Amino acid sequence: MSSFSGSASVLIEALPYIQRFNGKIVVIKYGGSVFSGDSGTLETFAADVALIHSVGMKPVVVHGGGPQIDRIAAALGIESNFVDGLRVTGAAMLEAVQMGLLGLVNPEIVRAINRHGDLATGVSGVDGSSVLVKPKDERLGFVGEVVSVDPRLLGGMVGDGVIPVVASIAVDAAGQLYNVNADTLASAVAAALRAEKLIYLSNVPGVLRDPADSSTLINQIKVDDIDSLIKGDIIGGGMIPKVIAAREAVAAGVARVHMIDGRVPHSLLLELLTDRGVGTMFLGD
Amino acid sequence: MSSFSGSASVLIEALPYIQRFNGKIVVIKYGGSVFSGDSGTLETFAADVALIHSVGMKPVVVHGGGPQIDRIAAALGIESNFVDGLRVTGAAMLEAVQMGLLGLVNPEIVRAINRHGDLATGVSGVDGSSVLVKPKDERLGFVGEVVSVDPRLLGGMVGDGVIPVVASIAVDAAGQLYNVNADTLASAVAAALRAEKLIYLSNVPGVLRDPADSSTLINQIKVDDIDSLIKGDIIGGGMIPKVIAAREAVAAGVARVHMIDGRVPHSLLLELLTDRGVGTMFLGD
Amino acid sequence: MSSFSGSASVLIEALPYIQRFNGKIVVIKYGGSVFSGDSGTLETFAADVALIHSVGMKPVVVHGGGPQIDRIAAALGIESNFVDGLRVTGAAMLEAVQMGLLGLVNPEIVRAINRHGDLATGVSGVDGSSVLVKPKDERLGFVGEVVSVDPRLLGGMVGDGVIPVVASIAVDAAGQLYNVNADTLASAVAAALRAEKLIYLSNVPGVLRDPADSSTLINQIKVDDIDSLIKGDIIGGGMIPKVIAAREAVAAGVARVHMIDGRVPHSLLLELLTDRGVGTMFLGD
Amino acid sequence: MSSFSGSASVLIEALPYIQRFNGKIVVIKYGGSVFSGDSGTLETFAADVALIHSVGMKPVVVHGGGPQIDRIAAALGIESNFVDGLRVTGAAMLEAVQMGLLGLVNPEIVRAINRHGDLATGVSGVDGSSVLVKPKDERLGFVGEVVSVDPRLLGGMVGDGVIPVVASIAVDAAGQLYNVNADTLASAVAAALRAEKLIYLSNVPGVLRDPADSSTLINQIKVDDIDSLIKGDIIGGGMIPKVIAAREAVAAGVARVHMIDGRVPHSLLLELLTDRGVGTMFLGD
Amino acid sequence: MSSFSGSASVLIEALPYIQRFNGKIVVIKYGGSVFSGDSGTLETFAADVALIHSVGMKPVVVHGGGPQIDRIAAALGIESNFVDGLRVTGAAMLEAVQMGLLGLVNPEIVRAINRHGDLATGVSGVDGSSVLVKPKDERLGFVGEVVSVDPRLLGGMVGDGVIPVVASIAVDAAGQLYNVNADTLASAVAAALRAEKLIYLSNVPGVLRDPADSSTLINQIKVDDIDSLIKGDIIGGGMIPKVIAAREAVAAGVARVHMIDGRVPHSLLLELLTDRGVGTMFLGD
Amino acid sequence: MSSFSGSASVLIEALPYIQRFNGKIVVIKYGGSVFSGDSGTLETFAADVALIHSVGMKPVVVHGGGPQIDRIAAALGIESNFVDGLRVTGAAMLEAVQMGLLGLVNPEIVRAINRHGDLATGVSGVDGSSVLVKPKDERLGFVGEVVSVDPRLLGGMVGDGVIPVVASIAVDAAGQLYNVNADTLASAVAAALRAEKLIYLSNVPGVLRDPADSSTLINQIKVDDIDSLIKGDIIGGGMIPKVIAAREAVAAGVARVHMIDGRVPHSLLLELLTDRGVGTMFLGD
Repeated sequence: MSSFSGSASVLIEALPYIQRFNGKIVVIKYGGSVFSGDSGTLETFAADVALIHSVGMKPVVVHGGGPQIDRIAAALGIESNFVDGLRVTGAAMLEAVQMGLLGLVNPEIVRAINRHGDLATGVSGVDGSSVLVKPKDERLGFVGEVVSVDPRLLGGMVGDGVIPVVASIAVDAAGQLYNVNADTLASAVAAALRAEKLIYLSNVPGVLRDPADSSTLINQIKVDDIDSLIKGDIIGGGMIPKVIAAREAVAAGVARVHMIDGRVPHSLLLELLTDRGVGTMFLGD
Repeated sequence: MSSFSGSASVLIEALPYIQRFNGKIVVIKYGGSVFSGDSGTLETFAADVALIHSVGMKPVVVHGGGPQIDRIAAALGIESNFVDGLRVTGAAMLEAVQMGLLGLVNPEIVRAINRHGDLATGVSGVDGSSVLVKPKDERLGFVGEVVSVDPRLLGGMVGDGVIPVVASIAVDAAGQLYNVNADTLASAVAAALRAEKLIYLSNVPGVLRDPADSSTLINQIKVDDIDSLIKGDIIGGGMIPKVIAAREAVAAGVARVHMIDGRVPHSLLLELLTDRGVGTMFLGD
Repeated sequence: MSSFSGSASVLIEALPYIQRFNGKIVVIKYGGSVFSGDSGTLETFAADVALIHSVGMKPVVVHGGGPQIDRIAAALGIESNFVDGLRVTGAAMLEAVQMGLLGLVNPEIVRAINRHGDLATGVSGVDGSSVLVKPKDERLGFVGEVVSVDPRLLGGMVGDGVIPVVASIAVDAAGQLYNVNADTLASAVAAALRAEKLIYLSNVPGVLRDPADSSTLINQIKVDDIDSLIKGDIIGGGMIPKVIAAREAVAAGVARVHMIDGRVPHSLLLELLTDRGVGTMFLGD
Repeated sequence: MSSFSGSASVLIEALPYIQRFNGKIVVIKYGGSVFSGDSGTLETFAADVALIHSVGMKPVVVHGGGPQIDRIAAALGIESNFVDGLRVTGAAMLEAVQMGLLGLVNPEIVRAINRHGDLATGVSGVDGSSVLVKPKDERLGFVGEVVSVDPRLLGGMVGDGVIPVVASIAVDAAGQLYNVNADTLASAVAAALRAEKLIYLSNVPGVLRDPADSSTLINQIKVDDIDSLIKGDIIGGGMIPKVIAAREAVAAGVARVHMIDGRVPHSLLLELLTDRGVGTMFLGD
Repeated sequence: MSSFSGSASVLIEALPYIQRFNGKIVVIKYGGSVFSGDSGTLETFAADVALIHSVGMKPVVVHGGGPQIDRIAAALGIESNFVDGLRVTGAAMLEAVQMGLLGLVNPEIVRAINRHGDLATGVSGVDGSSVLVKPKDERLGFVGEVVSVDPRLLGGMVGDGVIPVVASIAVDAAGQLYNVNADTLASAVAAALRAEKLIYLSNVPGVLRDPADSSTLINQIKVDDIDSLIKGDIIGGGMIPKVIAAREAVAAGVARVHMIDGRVPHSLLLELLTDRGVGTMFLGD
Repeated sequence: MSSFSGSASVLIEALPYIQRFNGKIVVIKYGGSVFSGDSGTLETFAADVALIHSVGMKPVVVHGGGPQIDRIAAALGIESNFVDGLRVTGAAMLEAVQMGLLGLVNPEIVRAINRHGDLATGVSGVDGSSVLVKPKDERLGFVGEVVSVDPRLLGGMVGDGVIPVVASIAVDAAGQLYNVNADTLASAVAAALRAEKLIYLSNVPGVLRDPADSSTLINQIKVDDIDSLIKGDIIGGGMIPKVIAAREAVAAGVARVHMIDGRVPHSLLLELLTDRGVGTMFLGD
């Protein structure tokens, strides 16, 4: 009987979340670093996305694919250069980015979700010119800074019950393609779609005071405190753009932003449907 | 971490049921005998009804109220007589039935569900003349046998997101009120609404081979086997009308009929959202 | 030929009213005192309600049932006490009120209207928690003062072509049931539904300067004059709460409030469809 | 009080008709002979048409205008010739017909109805090519025999709440205009619109056994008996085409066809809303 | 191949106009003087109207018919008198106007358009009382000045895919018919329907500096310059009311008003679908 | 004036086509061989697609990209092998196909169309699992034969006013990606969408009796004659699969299939909007 009442209590905890998130948009950034881990991780992620969709949520997946791009660039003999941690993207590298994100990563995620039904469709910011960018820095070449996200294409897909899987490629006003940071894009998409939640799935447990010690996880961060955390070197390195993207999403009206560990099986489901927080939550005042 | 994965597995089990039953009608007969137990039972039942409604199911509650009628009849000095286990219902007793079911039991269930939102509305077969009966047996007076259930009123309420709570009072073609068996009414309502499930909540664990021994629960009964089970005295007494009503619902196209123990906390939730069956399930061939 | 032109002139007078009231809500308070008269009165009333519904009006019936409650209380040996003309309603008396209004009066009115089609459905303020009250006076027990009427349930029924028959029982915020004055409830329902008309059908011809002399009927009363009429003892006794309820309805935007004699056959029809006023009309400035 | 109950009984008689005819199409042939009587007759007719429209019926008026055409032809010096009682219509006479029906009679009826609201719009079979004819007889010139009525234009107007006033002019497949018998056109329009009723308003009380004695009115004629009534000379002269048109309408599914006296004030209203038949009713078997 | 690329360039020029005007209302004044020319002109005009309708525009034709009225008046021996160039319209002349416009011109235009489908329906301002006028000048009799145009009837027809052909007859508030200037009516109709374009088709090439020399065509006129053009005698005679009507349409929000030569085959098509302007365009600042 | 009437005659010819094709789906196979020509060809094609969309047609573009795949395979050192003219597609080659079609060709076409508005969105048969294939021949590896096309995703996009640009990649029932022939895919898509037309744009003028002599163009081919044309060596080589795909589309109900020269500027526009056929038309009996 004990497991009986155990099951009942999980359900009594989960059902109100299901009701609350019914019809609500949840944008999930799925990191290339998680993706390139064991394929079981992708399959578990895809199953969770299909499950939350099945009970009425509206997931939108945004992805990059750094490791895959690196592999193609190497195979084609294109040299990889970085400025301030950002990939210099000349014409040849842009083709490698397109080939990696549009040609390989995107259909792989779509395919994995579609094992659970004809649910997902791949898109990029080129489609319907829905993500408009401008050059970020002349030293970087075709690296774009998001100017605006037109919500009609993605919103229409979501309204039709489709799960969009968005590759981080965009266009400028003249129709030129650009490489764009996937964390920033996820934040801009969440803002444009007035998403209820934005969840970053990556290969860390969240924001850690000591990156080497997962017991130092910070459970909640007020976005007003982010600057001092960066200054105090508590947030640093590759975490900085993620955290700033989180802040922008909160500022744009996304109610909750979470950074969780994509390597923990079903962390997405647990984050959405249980009282226990996992990872770090960003919130406004 | 173990309870983490425990919660995840309950959810992974429950979510497909939530999807499958989304928008589906579930008729629940709530027995007067359960009701008249401790009030905690009613409150737990009401919470479960509100929860399944919150995640997209369409519950319809049908109730009788024998103990309450007995109490009123006694207070008013009306003699209770039974023929073949059915209450003889003269004009005075009919008033007692109306007073008990419409005046006391119905608003009590409505009130309990409405603690979780403005969800429930009480009705009877008199409303919209939606349950039409004819006299069952001249010795019984105003005891009705269901002729037809007009699904428009109840279906309209369900379509508007309302939870109907149906008292077992009906009318004949001339508008005369009648007392009607609630088990039979629940079956007829489930058939008329093309319900996905019909669940009898009563104060027994299900159909038992030995009524005194709950370990003799029969998990599944094919409706074609009911006659031989009755002949073999395995099903007897007050269980017979319930079992026949279950058979009629299955014949009318209700996919699944269950008889479960209303005294087990959250038995309704567990029946609907876990793989483990509780009580006895009736099914066609 | 004379009766020919007579019929024509009645029709020419009535048709514009039918057009004007098409789709408009008319709330009718049907008094327990009228009801408990000869049953022909109820049948005539029910026929009129069905007729005005048949030509496009949207009637809503509100009723109390003092005489019926008295009868039950007496049968159960519950003592009736009154404070300032209001019934003291302890727990036992509240059950008698529920049994009288919900168990007996409400289904009787519903049944009578439904002889003309599957039109009427009984409800109370408990259903959908649609009438919210607070205790009126601690000396009175469970006697409620209307706080608000949620128009969704009743408005939805009216929109679906149903005639709601509303018993004067309500709930407080905690879900406790209360007895509530039916005249006041009719006024609050008319206001919440933005009714075109509110008509009180009772066993007097209207407001009389001399209650003993029906030739002293006051045809029109401006609601601003009510206070002075009360002070001048022209309005007194049981007429006072009715008149105050009428004033509140006018203040809330109900265009016309009428008090007419329910004992005159078809007085409802004549009030609505002829130029001749019957009874007393209340109007704003 | 007696006139009170008299009014009530007229209403109780009329209201079910109003309900029954709600949204139903009633085609009314308004004869040129009635029209050219005193103008009070037109005004009374127009008021009745507006009234039945106001309570939900869908009137369609069809008219001819023999006397007006005669007047114009005389003024223009066009000779009038008849073959078998039908007007020979050469090119000059066709212009006179157009000028009379479209130029004078049609706007006069439209204007009279529109005194009661912006209700009526004039049309002819030329509009939308909605009445298609072929030459009836080469000796008659541009006199058309109805081939088909396209219900889209008139049905669309009726659906928009407009009262069409239809002049009896039509076109052949090549777009040539034709004069067409208004009685026949009314029947064809009623059939095409699946009208509930077709009413001929003319300057006789109905079909009379003795045309000189209005007490010999035949109240009902089965359409199967029409041939023998014509053979027996009981129906003759100008009544024959009307009666045949009535038979065709009944054959095409129009439930009831009536021939009533347009000179009796409000005869249209009395026919539609009282139990007493006026004039002659044609019915199937 | 040259005609190949020639065809392509015409299409590339025309298609954006088709897109731009899709669903847009174009009011076309078709002058009686054009109409009374060779019948080929009417047929060509009708074909063009049907064509632009076929690709999604919403044409509305407004017409007068001076020459036809003159002919009828002469035949009936009614004397024609003019005051300041406007026809004095007594009761007899008004009948001639109705006979000419409603009886002859209107069905002729309707018939010509309907050769290309069941597209056109004739109406006048009497229908639905849609054009309301007041007397313009007591010396002129029944000559009306437009007070208002109710867009419901015409807008409804346009919305149903019908091409209205509007005769310049209107009513005053009492329902009296009036003759009304067709140029002014076209302008008022265009304003009431919020038309995209108003095109005057007449028997001149547009506004000419020297009426005798078509090479002096003024291509564009700013409406603010109209007064000085009139003062300078560059615009005079019958052109003045047209030009003033054009100004009123521009002031009421009609984007473009054109005056083009109805005698040039397909001038309507060329005006709407090519870059080359034909005739004179009036525009605001 | 001559060019005036010339323009008019082009328009009079084109407008009925625009009406006829309004809302109709036109599937256009855009060949990789055309694409890899001068970029002006792509820009002109994109402009034509946007134009026909602007006047109400519903274009769907299907593309392959042989030359681009060859280039990537060469750069990555993947050997190209062919069996019966079909590319052997091992795992490495499949990645090259995905990189070429999804990564490079698809966004390039989308971008070119979107210069004329936010119109086009790239998809493949992986999206929504909308194109299901099975292995064509075990010697060919991941080369798919179309089993079915689910029209919901593409039909939904078309219904939303989007121009789908479909890359010839598909999935099998297990979600494995496959390379698929674009000519065949275009035919299957046209059949699934019940397209009005299927147009193959390639780098030949159509089917030629003598491939070296464009004056030997066959204007029309009945699909029943295709077998004998192949046997007679009149149709041979790479033309065979195109012609067979054309036959399958005709068999599936696509009204017209055309093979036209993509190198002729605006050949798409001329095919759709002029009477002159260009290239070869395939039709049923």
